[in-house]
Amino acid sequence: MPYFDAASAAPLHPVAREALLAALDEGWADPVRLYREGRRARMLLDAAREAAAEAVGCRPDELVFTPSGTQAVHSGMSGALAARRRVGRGLVHSAVEHSSVLHAAEAHTAAGGTVTQVGVDRTGRVAAGEFAAALRPDTALACLQSANHEVGTEQPVEEVAARCQEAGVPLLVDAAQSLAWGPVPGAWSLLAASAHKWGGPPGVGLLAVRKGTRFAPQGPADERESGRAPGFGNLPGIVAAAAALRALRAEAASGADEAARLRGLVGRIRTRVPELVGEVEVVGDPVRRLPHLVTFSCLYVDGEVLLQELDRAGFSVSSGSSCTSSTLTPSHVLRAMGVLSEGNVRVSLPYGTDEAEVERFLQVLPGVVRSVRERLGVPVEEPEMPGKPAAAGEETGLVVDALGKRCPIPVIELAKVIGRVPVGGTVTVLSDDEAARQDIPAWCAMREQEYVGERDAERGAAYVVRRRV
Amino acid sequence: MPYFDAASAAPLHPVAREALLAALDEGWADPVRLYREGRRARMLLDAAREAAAEAVGCRPDELVFTPSGTQAVHSGMSGALAARRRVGRGLVHSAVEHSSVLHAAEAHTAAGGTVTQVGVDRTGRVAAGEFAAALRPDTALACLQSANHEVGTEQPVEEVAARCQEAGVPLLVDAAQSLAWGPVPGAWSLLAASAHKWGGPPGVGLLAVRKGTRFAPQGPADERESGRAPGFGNLPGIVAAAAALRALRAEAASGADEAARLRGLVGRIRTRVPELVGEVEVVGDPVRRLPHLVTFSCLYVDGEVLLQELDRAGFSVSSGSSCTSSTLTPSHVLRAMGVLSEGNVRVSLPYGTDEAEVERFLQVLPGVVRSVRERLGVPVEEPEMPGKPAAAGEETGLVVDALGKRCPIPVIELAKVIGRVPVGGTVTVLSDDEAARQDIPAWCAMREQEYVGERDAERGAAYVVRRRV
Repeated sequence: MPYFDAASAAPLHPVAREALLAALDEGWADPVRLYREGRRARMLLDAAREAAAEAVGCRPDELVFTPSGTQAVHSGMSGALAARRRVGRGLVHSAVEHSSVLHAAEAHTAAGGTVTQVGVDRTGRVAAGEFAAALRPDTALACLQSANHEVGTEQPVEEVAARCQEAGVPLLVDAAQSLAWGPVPGAWSLLAASAHKWGGPPGVGLLAVRKGTRFAPQGPADERESGRAPGFGNLPGIVAAAAALRALRAEAASGADEAARLRGLVGRIRTRVPELVGEVEVVGDPVRRLPHLVTFSCLYVDGEVLLQELDRAGFSVSSGSSCTSSTLTPSHVLRAMGVLSEGNVRVSLPYGTDEAEVERFLQVLPGVVRSVRERLGVPVEEPEMPGKPAAAGEETGLVVDALGKRCPIPVIELAKVIGRVPVGGTVTVLSDDEAARQDIPAWCAMREQEYVGERDAERGAAYVVRRRV
Repeated sequence: MPYFDAASAAPLHPVAREALLAALDEGWADPVRLYREGRRARMLLDAAREAAAEAVGCRPDELVFTPSGTQAVHSGMSGALAARRRVGRGLVHSAVEHSSVLHAAEAHTAAGGTVTQVGVDRTGRVAAGEFAAALRPDTALACLQSANHEVGTEQPVEEVAARCQEAGVPLLVDAAQSLAWGPVPGAWSLLAASAHKWGGPPGVGLLAVRKGTRFAPQGPADERESGRAPGFGNLPGIVAAAAALRALRAEAASGADEAARLRGLVGRIRTRVPELVGEVEVVGDPVRRLPHLVTFSCLYVDGEVLLQELDRAGFSVSSGSSCTSSTLTPSHVLRAMGVLSEGNVRVSLPYGTDEAEVERFLQVLPGVVRSVRERLGVPVEEPEMPGKPAAAGEETGLVVDALGKRCPIPVIELAKVIGRVPVGGTVTVLSDDEAARQDIPAWCAMREQEYVGERDAERGAAYVVRRRV
């Protein structure tokens, strides 16, 4: 059964499974003890640290293992921020970081710190110059992902790291999505990653803090992992995680270019989905991207129903649509990019994905989208009426009441009436759905209609669209 | 090879190993996802939570899984303290808690809180009344272990929990050492434990917070595990941990009374070690104790050398002696009890320990201790001179310079000269070894000599002993 959500959790690499089994037998004891079982555990831990450090591109004594990528990010941010508290309390990060960075930033704000978010372009990429411009004399830490977890866009980490170095600001790189594919280049100061994204088991993250980076671990003291990850470590998991990472690097070095192969499969999805499924926006940078990940949004489609139907057809994918989350707001990444969020699908191919599975996905997807649209009563052709300027006295201020209706209904209602509006006339959509704020402008961009703006309304907001074509 | 350090880390229970293998195949995906791999993972997580909750004696929605027992303690304490901040900032705990509690208490103090330590008797047990007396109107939280990790003494948790309830103070129980043997009785509010102590894999802890207990998770927000344990969970580990705990309970229920069997083996060690090895103090409560754990200290023995020699003879044990730790101070538990710390050995028998291994340990131990003592030049018989009162004009103020010498040398030097002191006369030992502060009084108690007290000295301290017998 094709599982296409490697960006959430990759299936265990076979090498990791073997290493984990061996480490259950050899690595269950406490590595700080001096008896033979402890010494054996210590040797396994040391070897795992060396392998992981080599794959990351740092020294073994700069790297600690944490219980998750999230905890690596939390510890890395709090330790770096605290160590530079005298410099200032400013934190700079991109608007499309992983929630672990955003949550740590919220905690920093709640504790009296200041946060500057750097926006992204429509592909989800920050501009290095804009990021550098956000650095101030009181900036204690900057955070930038190596590549985005929802749309796959690679960030200009090397250039940003150089600019941070010039400014004397440490840069923490969240490399969770990219570490499987290679080390992060450049003069970063801290790096966090998560093993279950590269085929290691869940329960293992890593945090690298390069020498010369000021760091003050927060929270209760602990003697393990340089005080940066309290508690008895998950040694079998650590051994397995390091083995998987080493295996990926060895396979890449031996010429088996899995990244290039998956890049080709994703390229095929990027090209063919818009041909096969109408009214689709493929998002993210088409070139500077992760090899295995592609995201697209389907107009007039309910993300949750789409995922259910794909699951029924045997495909496991995820979505950044509001209608599949418990928060009723679309993904902050899609919002920061200003792209359509409804009917959103993220496909992330695990290592070794069969080409035939991708082909079958491309066969199945159009029918699934069509059936979801049909059930929602989507206008087959719009505008129904060829556009012409308003005649004298003609009503030009149509209002559509979509209050109480969730994504994608407000956009569907808009599409249904646009044909009745003369060119130059407006439609006002009343909606209390958070997704409408993002998807009505995105629809306008896709349809080349003018998005006039948003007005307060008694309930929700009033979104005004002017017909152009 | 006999491994007798289950209190550090127990070998994996066979059931846990099987469950872990199955969960690697079935439980690697993200349990919050709606596709089949996610639903399967969610079912495994729910089942594990139910099993663990049943073994703990709480409701499933009161229990979260953490990456370690240490993190369960840290999260439990910080969440409970923060939620009752308006009540006050007082924290009460026993003097013999695990380092995770002590470190969290230090962090609480550093943040402006106050900490009251409740002392223990010579067996390492707190008096419930004394504990209750330490509770004040501004006490936000009390912490008490169910049983001590170094000496095995059980604490009066049920009574203390009742007293805390009367006082309206939540009690957090660190049940890391006892949960394998049964649920913790009584009206506790929070409970922390660690899977690798009960035969689960490392990388899993649990925190129970009973309904009605105010709790405010600290640190960055996270949607997983009720916000009490951030990051992607170690589901294969969790499944294995719950399976091991369920298996232990099922075995106990089926009449296979492993606790009673190990209790008998430990009883044998408690009785025979003092017979086989002279000058030994077996510490901890002889009755109200963990079934599998016993600790004793050997006079005139270097703990590190003893552990090395036992390791060479095939036995893996641990020690609370200062000479085996990196801190140069003896275990805080032995210190709080006021017992001898030199030549300290903790034996903790894993589930299924072979009786023959215990017998072999008892055969090997006396020779090992003898050889260590011989190498240290221990006085074979002391006092060499029968005690008599000082004659007129006889020197009675002997001074022994043991500066720069580490445990157990200062006590050995004292024993060598005591025979030259007339009854009623004194010996002053100069020592800058932290262990002397504890071991010289302990030696006096064992030898029925009078410990007069400690004086400041130019270097270290001067310990004064009066000869009585």
